[in-house]
Amino acid sequence: MSDAGRVGATIGVDIGGTQVHGVLLGGDGAVLAEARVPTPQPETDDVAVPDAAGHDVAEAVLAVVRELRAAGGAQPPRRVGIGAPGMVDREGILRFAPNLPGASGADLGGLVSEGIGDLLVDVENDANCAALAERRFGSLRDVEHGMMVTLGTGIGVGLVVGGRVEIGASGFAGEAGHMIVDPAGPPCPCGRRGCWERYASGGGLGRLAREAAYAGRLAHVVATVGGDPENVHGEDISTAALGGDEGALGVLDELGWWLALGLANLVTVVDPERIAIGGGLGEAGHLLLEPTRRAFGALIEGGPFRPPIEVVGAALGERAGAIGAGLMARADRSP
Amino acid sequence: MSDAGRVGATIGVDIGGTQVHGVLLGGDGAVLAEARVPTPQPETDDVAVPDAAGHDVAEAVLAVVRELRAAGGAQPPRRVGIGAPGMVDREGILRFAPNLPGASGADLGGLVSEGIGDLLVDVENDANCAALAERRFGSLRDVEHGMMVTLGTGIGVGLVVGGRVEIGASGFAGEAGHMIVDPAGPPCPCGRRGCWERYASGGGLGRLAREAAYAGRLAHVVATVGGDPENVHGEDISTAALGGDEGALGVLDELGWWLALGLANLVTVVDPERIAIGGGLGEAGHLLLEPTRRAFGALIEGGPFRPPIEVVGAALGERAGAIGAGLMARADRSP
Repeated sequence: MSDAGRVGATIGVDIGGTQVHGVLLGGDGAVLAEARVPTPQPETDDVAVPDAAGHDVAEAVLAVVRELRAAGGAQPPRRVGIGAPGMVDREGILRFAPNLPGASGADLGGLVSEGIGDLLVDVENDANCAALAERRFGSLRDVEHGMMVTLGTGIGVGLVVGGRVEIGASGFAGEAGHMIVDPAGPPCPCGRRGCWERYASGGGLGRLAREAAYAGRLAHVVATVGGDPENVHGEDISTAALGGDEGALGVLDELGWWLALGLANLVTVVDPERIAIGGGLGEAGHLLLEPTRRAFGALIEGGPFRPPIEVVGAALGERAGAIGAGLMARADRSP
Repeated sequence: MSDAGRVGATIGVDIGGTQVHGVLLGGDGAVLAEARVPTPQPETDDVAVPDAAGHDVAEAVLAVVRELRAAGGAQPPRRVGIGAPGMVDREGILRFAPNLPGASGADLGGLVSEGIGDLLVDVENDANCAALAERRFGSLRDVEHGMMVTLGTGIGVGLVVGGRVEIGASGFAGEAGHMIVDPAGPPCPCGRRGCWERYASGGGLGRLAREAAYAGRLAHVVATVGGDPENVHGEDISTAALGGDEGALGVLDELGWWLALGLANLVTVVDPERIAIGGGLGEAGHLLLEPTRRAFGALIEGGPFRPPIEVVGAALGERAGAIGAGLMARADRSP
């Protein structure tokens, strides 16, 4: 993807598992306005059946777009980029979205265009958008071979190869949250077992946290949520870890180990010089990055015999996806 | 890698775990002569210590080169390409070679140049060489996004991205035999546990076969090797499977499942349109490809929602590595 043809301000929208986040992006890359709405939750658990959720998600995107267009003044932007979680093909169709159930198969670009007639809408994988943003303005600037890893409800990966975001034959490169790292592991919404994002995403943190709670390693945290281990969520771990809770820090260590395992696997495939970590969970900052870096050093193949690979926080934080979607809206889709 | 600057006949040498195989490659890509010697086995098991084995391997390569130069007639080729298993950096140094113990750190190009003064020698990862050959002449011809997977003592992967062999930031892309697919799995010579090649390579076949033999699922095969399960090797399985032995076919099914698991993981990262399977174990042909394709269909993320990805046998068979090394010798190293 490139954005050679600049067209002034654009709108970028990042569809996450919990919120739809949009930015009005100036021609210089500045964020001129922001808007957020909750992500509509589907009425079906069957990830393979397109239903009203595709429409609901499009309505949420439209709400964000309308708010940002109004902020655009007398000449509101006409170009909108949407970053969607899952397998987005080269025509912008969201073919399969394990973490946005019911939206698989959705033509979000078409639905949003129908809602506002004079929009030019393009759809791309959310992590690919984030990689584009970090490559342009953030922690992957000047990197020829790099990876952007977004930790949200699932894990998204955007690959930078030869200085460009590489989307693969069908547009599905970087779906590495669904690398199987333990064939006997827990079931994944994608229909298989032991996918990396079952361990190392926001959702994975919740699962690791509840396991630790049931095992009695989170007594203090469990007490703060009313005594039921089932009520422990990822955010409780981050909060407790900030306060120095040993059990919570232990869960983040475990999360960091799994994150590092998948990063080490990705390194064996694409050999990047730098890896940027972003997404909602990336906001945990050094509490997550430090255990990840420790484990990464031990898990990487031939570590002592290769140049160090930097693991850094995404400079644009959780805004990377929306900013990248706005950048992508400037561009031809052809990579 | 490209071979824009054609320079007539070259020599390509592929260093495998059991044999060093060379070809004299004509300017038109025809194999004009072949030579083989056994791969020297190291005196140490410590994969991290460069020792005489680097020199022994270089001597074996020199023996092959001398034989092929003699076959070159009055104007023997001066350019030699070497494909080596493991992490070969952009300067051609074999930084880490779990399956060629003792050669880690070896400057094979320098050693071979010292042996014959007027040679131009270049060294590249063996699977990257095989990918170059299949991309030029074989089953990846005209493929923009593809993978070459060589199954020998270990697993090598060569990536084709945008029509070119992609070697990554340091030259180490495609080391995916060392993706961890089961953190509790058997130890790997690389120093970690549960690497893909512990399950799906020639070495992995031997391990799966002995497990099946001890479990009593290979009674006939065990009888043919004298009654001791420890004596069952990969070749015994291939032979028995060709004869229709149910137990042996079961082991190949299991091998195919693990092979498919790793391929499905790679697909989540790079999204190829076609995957070529080669190397010594690739010679098992449909006996391995059929169970692999069956399992691959079930293991790939979002299989029903994406274009089919072809899994085919390498057209150049086990010669792909040496031919690719000969092609690489024509080229600038810069990708």
